[in-house]
Amino acid sequence: MTVMLTSPAGMAAQGVIDQLRPMLGDRLVTSNAVREQHRAEGQVTPALPDAVAFPTSTEEVAAIVRLCAAAKVPVIPFGAGTSLEGQLEAVRGGICLDLSRMDRIIAVNAEDLDCRIEAGVTREQLNQHLRAQGLFFPLDPGANATLGGMAATRASGTNAVRYGTMREVTLGLTVVTPQGEVIRTGGRARKSSAGYDLTRVYIGSEGTLGVITELQLRLFGIPEVIASAVCQFGDLEGLVGAVTVAVQMGIPLARIEMLDEVQMGACIAYSKLEGMAAAPTLFLEFHGGPQGVTEQIEQMRGIVEEFGGGSFQFAEAAEDRNRLWKARHDAYWAARALKPGTNSITTDACVPISALASVVAETKAEAVASGLVCPIVGHVGDGNFHVMILHDPNDAKERAKAKALGASVARRAIAAGGTCTGEHGVGLGKLDYMREEHGSALPVMRALKAALDPNGIMNPGKTIPDA
Amino acid sequence: MTVMLTSPAGMAAQGVIDQLRPMLGDRLVTSNAVREQHRAEGQVTPALPDAVAFPTSTEEVAAIVRLCAAAKVPVIPFGAGTSLEGQLEAVRGGICLDLSRMDRIIAVNAEDLDCRIEAGVTREQLNQHLRAQGLFFPLDPGANATLGGMAATRASGTNAVRYGTMREVTLGLTVVTPQGEVIRTGGRARKSSAGYDLTRVYIGSEGTLGVITELQLRLFGIPEVIASAVCQFGDLEGLVGAVTVAVQMGIPLARIEMLDEVQMGACIAYSKLEGMAAAPTLFLEFHGGPQGVTEQIEQMRGIVEEFGGGSFQFAEAAEDRNRLWKARHDAYWAARALKPGTNSITTDACVPISALASVVAETKAEAVASGLVCPIVGHVGDGNFHVMILHDPNDAKERAKAKALGASVARRAIAAGGTCTGEHGVGLGKLDYMREEHGSALPVMRALKAALDPNGIMNPGKTIPDA
Repeated sequence: MTVMLTSPAGMAAQGVIDQLRPMLGDRLVTSNAVREQHRAEGQVTPALPDAVAFPTSTEEVAAIVRLCAAAKVPVIPFGAGTSLEGQLEAVRGGICLDLSRMDRIIAVNAEDLDCRIEAGVTREQLNQHLRAQGLFFPLDPGANATLGGMAATRASGTNAVRYGTMREVTLGLTVVTPQGEVIRTGGRARKSSAGYDLTRVYIGSEGTLGVITELQLRLFGIPEVIASAVCQFGDLEGLVGAVTVAVQMGIPLARIEMLDEVQMGACIAYSKLEGMAAAPTLFLEFHGGPQGVTEQIEQMRGIVEEFGGGSFQFAEAAEDRNRLWKARHDAYWAARALKPGTNSITTDACVPISALASVVAETKAEAVASGLVCPIVGHVGDGNFHVMILHDPNDAKERAKAKALGASVARRAIAAGGTCTGEHGVGLGKLDYMREEHGSALPVMRALKAALDPNGIMNPGKTIPDA
Repeated sequence: MTVMLTSPAGMAAQGVIDQLRPMLGDRLVTSNAVREQHRAEGQVTPALPDAVAFPTSTEEVAAIVRLCAAAKVPVIPFGAGTSLEGQLEAVRGGICLDLSRMDRIIAVNAEDLDCRIEAGVTREQLNQHLRAQGLFFPLDPGANATLGGMAATRASGTNAVRYGTMREVTLGLTVVTPQGEVIRTGGRARKSSAGYDLTRVYIGSEGTLGVITELQLRLFGIPEVIASAVCQFGDLEGLVGAVTVAVQMGIPLARIEMLDEVQMGACIAYSKLEGMAAAPTLFLEFHGGPQGVTEQIEQMRGIVEEFGGGSFQFAEAAEDRNRLWKARHDAYWAARALKPGTNSITTDACVPISALASVVAETKAEAVASGLVCPIVGHVGDGNFHVMILHDPNDAKERAKAKALGASVARRAIAAGGTCTGEHGVGLGKLDYMREEHGSALPVMRALKAALDPNGIMNPGKTIPDA
């Protein structure tokens, strides 16, 4: 690793750095410390960018990309650095574009329930801004990610079962192409049949087709009534059974989150949750008018009873609700705290709801058999769950075991008609499974990449495996 | 026109026809009558395909496309022939692929609320099949279109405000590429971050990137309670005001349809609607549990009163509801019956909800000033409305006036931040507006087309204007 850390930039990259210096001044950084900060957390490949640029406008991004394009130097877009699949590793060096200073909220159109923001705005920043207007943006990956990064990985979170993923809530984008042109996709209408859906082409493209610099997003009115509840089960089977029936009945749950007993134990310890047992647990949230919410709660209570779940503990006050959901969002850190010093391989299986029970049961059995500590948490209303496979990165045998378990979870999801990644993206971490999941379509994906980025400068090595 | 009708196929097309004959037998038709049937209704360009093929499997489609690719002969996919923007005109001749015999419902997974069907299945056929299982597919363009055609034009209909468009309800596709390869996109999971979103690339591509032969679609449980109601207003302004507030308040309406007094008069006459006036009218539908629906109706009633709307006339029984919505679906034919022998230019403006009131008012004033008969109908919950501009196709002056009015409606929508086509697609009819609406993005759309269909054989001349 020392070699890369102190290695000089390649000739081409150094040329770009020299050209960028007058434009960016101290917003172009080549120190090892800053380059180190711009890698994804937990990665082992020793791959650093040659420099980190901090642009403050779309035009500046375009100017940087044009220089990189001319010199065929890689460009790696960077938001908050919270991706989990190695999306930010500079496997061929290049310029890391840190968009965190592009954090302007350009317009909030309360009447149209939409907004336009720069890509570096984080989800928490946006929601703080919106609160006074009675609006919110529902998507919430665990981390306080940037909205640009969330679009790039097609992220979702706990509210997706009701409000959709970044695919559904994004109306349009501003994108800097690999040639350094600025284009606008989509529009402000709720729906359109006008031409190819470029918005959806860039969403989930992980910076491999261009740089997202602005987003037009749908917003939602804060519901009249929000009721959060926790419900514990004697076993995971009962919990998953209840979820399956609730989804099949079409109860419009806003959130339905599963934590297994290992994860729940971790959260109780980390987030000081009181009055709860380290048992399989559902975190629920209901949105609507008073009568509609009452109806949903009654329906859900009936289902939970049928599957042996306990009573609902409600979090009524806003601060109690916030504490509950903060605990859920901190699940990753709570899990990591179970075994300090370990790394986590985080799986992201998402399967059809009819397969959820068997896939979770088989996964749980395999996790227990592995002897590793593996909390499970998930957005089960979408059929999506994460196993955090904790392992000592310095123990080759344990690392291999963790890797094998992660691969098995991904393959089981694909075999069940699902996907190896519901919301984290492919990056480097899931490249190995793309042939199994999308074999016949990979030539078309490669043709798309080659057409839009013919020199292959955009975040090389990610998302689509080589032929 | 006679010249084209009797003209022999070009050399290349004739070669393909000769090669296809042994495979397809009488499922390959070159008669003028059948070629005439495979044009879009109401088109004036005298452009017929050289032959019409009726494949019965994806493999057969692939074999036909491979022969066309080798000879560089155009391929025009055809579903039910209900498109409105000239999507089916064979501007360069070629083989029309009529997919109506690919009408198998391959699988209905009631537990997962999804199904897999061949592209020639129509929406009515699918819903008849689903009814016994308590499921339905909500999207409903006025005509009984095929699902393949609906995907190709990114169609929606009256339920899109609640259930989304073809973009949201399609989980995956089988596509025959312009090279004649068969690929599968997407999967069965509710969400996925695995690679480029090819499903959304093909949805709305109007047959210009490949042939959709199968679809994996989301289904929905028939709601416990369905309440339909009609509500009449003294003026269009009050109606649009009520719609705007309902959308802004986030009332989860399943359907909210506007008919202006001209359209309502036409529907009363055509569909024998009783007890209603030729006045601006909302057709409403509420879905949910009994308490939730009651709550929605109360909220909506309050809004309607505030904007001067009349009382709700409910259609309770299923047959009354069906009669009401059949009248809505027949609005196009009711409008055409106002002036038999005329053609219709049908606009498809879709604007942000805050712009709906001014855009509808200006459009209405312009329509009245034109002196033409112009019923207006729309999915106003999405900001989408159609003006049917009736005109005598043999009267050059009237035709020019109709065309100018259509252009004005399209341009006004784009100027308001909306789109010239919410759900009908671009085809030939909206090509002129693509520069205004998506100018900066057109080079990327062209690059996409060139990459996926390098010989330009797929439905040439449609969707994306030449550079």
